[in-house]
Amino acid sequence: MRAYNFCAGPAALPTAVLEKAQAEMLDWHGKGLSIMEMSHRSKDYVAVAEKAEADLRTLMNIPDNYKVLFLQGGASLQFSAIPLNLLGKNNKADYIHTGIWSEKALKEAQRYGDIHVVEAGIQIEGKHAISEQSQWNLSRDAAYVHYADNETIGGLQFANIPETDKPLVCDFSSSILSAPLDVSKFGLIYAGAQKNIGPAGLTIVIVREDLLDQAKPEIPSIL
Amino acid sequence: MRAYNFCAGPAALPTAVLEKAQAEMLDWHGKGLSIMEMSHRSKDYVAVAEKAEADLRTLMNIPDNYKVLFLQGGASLQFSAIPLNLLGKNNKADYIHTGIWSEKALKEAQRYGDIHVVEAGIQIEGKHAISEQSQWNLSRDAAYVHYADNETIGGLQFANIPETDKPLVCDFSSSILSAPLDVSKFGLIYAGAQKNIGPAGLTIVIVREDLLDQAKPEIPSIL
Repeated sequence: MRAYNFCAGPAALPTAVLEKAQAEMLDWHGKGLSIMEMSHRSKDYVAVAEKAEADLRTLMNIPDNYKVLFLQGGASLQFSAIPLNLLGKNNKADYIHTGIWSEKALKEAQRYGDIHVVEAGIQIEGKHAISEQSQWNLSRDAAYVHYADNETIGGLQFANIPETDKPLVCDFSSSILSAPLDVSKFGLIYAGAQKNIGPAGLTIVIVREDLLDQAKPEIPSIL
Repeated sequence: MRAYNFCAGPAALPTAVLEKAQAEMLDWHGKGLSIMEMSHRSKDYVAVAEKAEADLRTLMNIPDNYKVLFLQGGASLQFSAIPLNLLGKNNKADYIHTGIWSEKALKEAQRYGDIHVVEAGIQIEGKHAISEQSQWNLSRDAAYVHYADNETIGGLQFANIPETDKPLVCDFSSSILSAPLDVSKFGLIYAGAQKNIGPAGLTIVIVREDLLDQAKPEIPSIL
């Protein structure tokens, strides 16, 4: 009997997935070794990585002009990588503040640029809520608008995708793949995999290609 | 029959380790779930992480004034993190160049500080070798001296630990735990785990505590 895991951190993995990983632990597809022992440049491993990307592209209907990146470092490393890559020359961005994760993201971004914080957390009849977009004063010259789709600790989730003519950047760590999403409305989507996709250790970034030539000179090469 | 893996990338894992991981895949220690599904803040998981650190401290005889960090991003992210954390105010370091990995490290460091490159790769009777330390002109004011213990592609390994009164920083990715090492001679040791320790995805950093207060302001918080 397997336990049900409703914990706020890493989530349950499907039994079928664990059973397959278990069966292949000492011998992956008759190769005589685990996939963890294979060269990351081998045809077998590259095929697995390519299939993972192709499956995610199909599942999320990701347009061809978006890159899909499988990274390390969690959403927290993206809190740095996003402003370092996307603030660009005018060095300004809007960050919508609705809870602890959007706050962590905006505090990190403030280390690199001029960040306009939009306070969107309100109380309605004693309950946390997100204010109407008409009450936000978004900047005219922001390089992008950032928000966190679902704030796990306060329990606040956006009912709609905010509307803006700027690239929209969103932390979907706790809501990715939980509902259909129109990827084309976003400049960049990022998510730690540990809640909705797989085990901890993987971070997914989906980014529109035209945003990728603005990195700051001080950015670590890996970011 | 398991295959022998002599590949230059990820290395073979012990059969006993894989068998244990296989046995625990759906139920770790009778808890009814995989350790991958457990909260990283749970007592059970924290105990595993603490035991891993304690075992490494015992195995390598790591002095108490060194921190042991289990990180992501590989040695390549450390190529950035090390200069950003250790160059300090005078912003200079010596990098000993013996092959492709030490070159990658020094090229990344050059983006952040004044890097003095010590060319130590020589030819002796038509074979690659490392020159005697007496022929290196190390700087008087370097914040640290960096080298790569074993250059996998060219096949060059240091026979001795270089002598310096500066903090010595070394990439041990392909030689950590392959021989006894006097950790106290180093300011910082780093290694990707995938060759000598475990599966890809883990990076180990062992750092002397007194070096940890010099981070540059532009460093991403995760680094």
